Amino acid sequence: PGYPQSSGFCGLQSDELIVDSFRLQQQIDELASFSDSSAPSVTRILYSEADVRARRYIKDLMDSSGLIVREDGVGNIFGRWEGSDSMAPAIATGSHTDAIPFSGKYDGVVGVLGAIEAINALNRTGFKPRRSLEVIMFTSEEPTRFGISCLGSRLLAGLPNMKSSLERVVDKDNISFPDAAAIAGYEFALETLLEVPLKEDTYAAFVELHIEQGPILEEEGIAIGIVTAIAAPASLKVDFRGDGGHAGAVLMPSRNDAGLAAAELALAVEKHVLETQSADTVGTTGVLELYPGAVNSIPSAAHIEIDIRDIDEQRRNSVIQHIKVSASEIATRRHVHLDFQIVTQDPPAASSQKIVKAIESASQQLGLTSKHMISRAYHDSLFMARVSPMGMIFIPCYRGYSHRPDEFASREDLSNGIKVLALSLLALSSDL
Amino acid sequence: PGYPQSSGFCGLQSDELIVDSFRLQQQIDELASFSDSSAPSVTRILYSEADVRARRYIKDLMDSSGLIVREDGVGNIFGRWEGSDSMAPAIATGSHTDAIPFSGKYDGVVGVLGAIEAINALNRTGFKPRRSLEVIMFTSEEPTRFGISCLGSRLLAGLPNMKSSLERVVDKDNISFPDAAAIAGYEFALETLLEVPLKEDTYAAFVELHIEQGPILEEEGIAIGIVTAIAAPASLKVDFRGDGGHAGAVLMPSRNDAGLAAAELALAVEKHVLETQSADTVGTTGVLELYPGAVNSIPSAAHIEIDIRDIDEQRRNSVIQHIKVSASEIATRRHVHLDFQIVTQDPPAASSQKIVKAIESASQQLGLTSKHMISRAYHDSLFMARVSPMGMIFIPCYRGYSHRPDEFASREDLSNGIKVLALSLLALSSDL
Ligand SMILES: [Mn+2]
Ligand SMILES: [Mn+2]
Ligand SMILES: [Mn+2]
Ligand SMILES: [Mn+2]
Repeated sequence: PGYPQSSGFCGLQSDELIVDSFRLQQQIDELASFSDSSAPSVTRILYSEADVRARRYIKDLMDSSGLIVREDGVGNIFGRWEGSDSMAPAIATGSHTDAIPFSGKYDGVVGVLGAIEAINALNRTGFKPRRSLEVIMFTSEEPTRFGISCLGSRLLAGLPNMKSSLERVVDKDNISFPDAAAIAGYEFALETLLEVPLKEDTYAAFVELHIEQGPILEEEGIAIGIVTAIAAPASLKVDFRGDGGHAGAVLMPSRNDAGLAAAELALAVEKHVLETQSADTVGTTGVLELYPGAVNSIPSAAHIEIDIRDIDEQRRNSVIQHIKVSASEIATRRHVHLDFQIVTQDPPAASSQKIVKAIESASQQLGLTSKHMISRAYHDSLFMARVSPMGMIFIPCYRGYSHRPDEFASREDLSNGIKVLALSLLALSSDL
Repeated sequence: PGYPQSSGFCGLQSDELIVDSFRLQQQIDELASFSDSSAPSVTRILYSEADVRARRYIKDLMDSSGLIVREDGVGNIFGRWEGSDSMAPAIATGSHTDAIPFSGKYDGVVGVLGAIEAINALNRTGFKPRRSLEVIMFTSEEPTRFGISCLGSRLLAGLPNMKSSLERVVDKDNISFPDAAAIAGYEFALETLLEVPLKEDTYAAFVELHIEQGPILEEEGIAIGIVTAIAAPASLKVDFRGDGGHAGAVLMPSRNDAGLAAAELALAVEKHVLETQSADTVGTTGVLELYPGAVNSIPSAAHIEIDIRDIDEQRRNSVIQHIKVSASEIATRRHVHLDFQIVTQDPPAASSQKIVKAIESASQQLGLTSKHMISRAYHDSLFMARVSPMGMIFIPCYRGYSHRPDEFASREDLSNGIKVLALSLLALSSDL
């Protein structure tokens, strides 16, 4: 907070910019009510009725804000404020509104409702954009239903192999992607896939507002995180298999316990990450399943899934290499069979320097403390970076909690983020 | 195998004793067909239709063998061969026929069908028992349906608190114990509980024939294991709770990963067991569950279940104590909340010296190699030991496998075990 330190910014006094944080909070709460689990948790899965209601809600809000609404074949929603130079590449902002089971109200939502409110705030000042401004609601950032994260933005970025994946996938109830899409009103989702990728130079910039999903900003009392890069995640699946047996009858020297191999590997993941001595490297064993999973049975199989992220691709890959060596060593020593699979290993994305500077200036203009950060969570921005200069604005969230019902961002932090977004859009829109 | 070394045993030539291992194998296979999963796996849960069919099959076999069949209120089945001294405490043998999901054909079954065939073999020699002989099929040795192992033998032994447990329990489909029992034809299971416990001196001996469920006999090429004691299991439930969070966003120093705490404790269990330097101490982490169990979420909770067994009760309790100290140390160091619960901690049971000697002599008489063993798996014998002198006969099984579809014992090993059982019953029955 604090009083504006510089008095003007592209002709706009920063104190002319007013965010209606009360109405925004009402909208966040209303959107949260479209959910398949009871409050305070939110569950909003791709193409479910709750998702469809959220889509209608966002389109209505865009419409009320004077935006021209357009939707593509998979349900990416665009609201456009036509600029005076309507032929120039536009400036886009946005995020997602889908929510994993039993999660919270802010992840993604802040970047959609906040973008619409930023447009409203700019509108109220009398500002007219030179480049057009667009708000995007991306389809299915979360991988919940079909196991594909950032579905909408991957398609917008024209990533290869998406069509063949989407022809194949089914959800846990064996419903195919086109059938699920059709139920939600996207009857030609597969047929129109070729029209989804963005044409070159559609956007001169893409900026996403998002809660940090980590504790740093809150701990350090900083209002704005300026994302300089997004660490792309790599994910591994590892299976160990042993002979199992009766927990009472098989003596210790005769065992090859797949569960203990998995336990060792989970600890090795942590060790190899810490050995980098880099704050930017993180590694997590989020899934560890034992078979048969009975107290009186020696585990005959263990399945673990590991998530490794780093902004430094080489360092991340070297951690993966170390984990692989450990897995082999453990398997050999414990006489268990090993199956080691690298599932994804995406490159990281760097923010555009111009956008970073625009966010910096906006924060300064508003007298807000800020710091450069790396986004270790990935976002639609990771894929938008492939077709547009990209930047992200983080705001603090309660204890860094995310993907849980007690996810929370204060109205003041929301308001700060939206103002920074508005001033950044303003500057980028005016930029030649 | 080998040729009989001594020529007589209580008036019976050991080569007069003939086991019909072909018919036995047919019976084992037929019993295995009463199953709720497809062959080769067997699933036979307490009071299911498969269990009811198995009970009818056993009662018919007992009847065909000339035994007087009796059933108590919970379905423990007794087949009696009346001895010449019908007032003297009888000699009992038996085991269970229930099978955990997707297990095999031999666990328990060998001790029931084998006992009936031992009776047949004795009958064929013209032998008449002095003490009566009884074959018992115990109800629900496996804890599958209601979480209570050795249900029938616990009740026969008059263990306290069983009635209040059985009034409370429901299965996973919320069916109560008396309702499940009624469906299987035991309509007054709860009402007749008081009549189930055995009167004092009902049995002068109880002998159970069982596959080893471990690899020792097969590895060492020994035909008969003579159980000198049953290690009673202790079981622990441990829960760790941390803050969880997003696998990408929360940096390593800010984490308190409940899953890694659980991984450390699983390895500590192994370490403390190995530190005893005792071959008789075993410890297993058979259950390890992470919450929420998503690859991109730091585990906020971990639940583990640990099984510890030892024939030396003090040493086993000291291992539990070490595990408890490790759990606390891990929880403190990793800043996670700990909930540590000792679920069961039963005393071990020692075999009767007289029965051990009877089994030893029988093996010797038959020219079979034997060794003294500890049963680390527990059995109905653990509870029968509370109301009768107890002993157990083990036979080798393929690679020590049990509780899996490829559980196997050869016809020769089965035949050996049944002959040893028959001669032991003969000796014990004749004993004054
Ligand atoms: Mn998310
Ligand atoms: Mn998100
Ligand atoms: Mn069993
Ligand atoms: Mn058994």
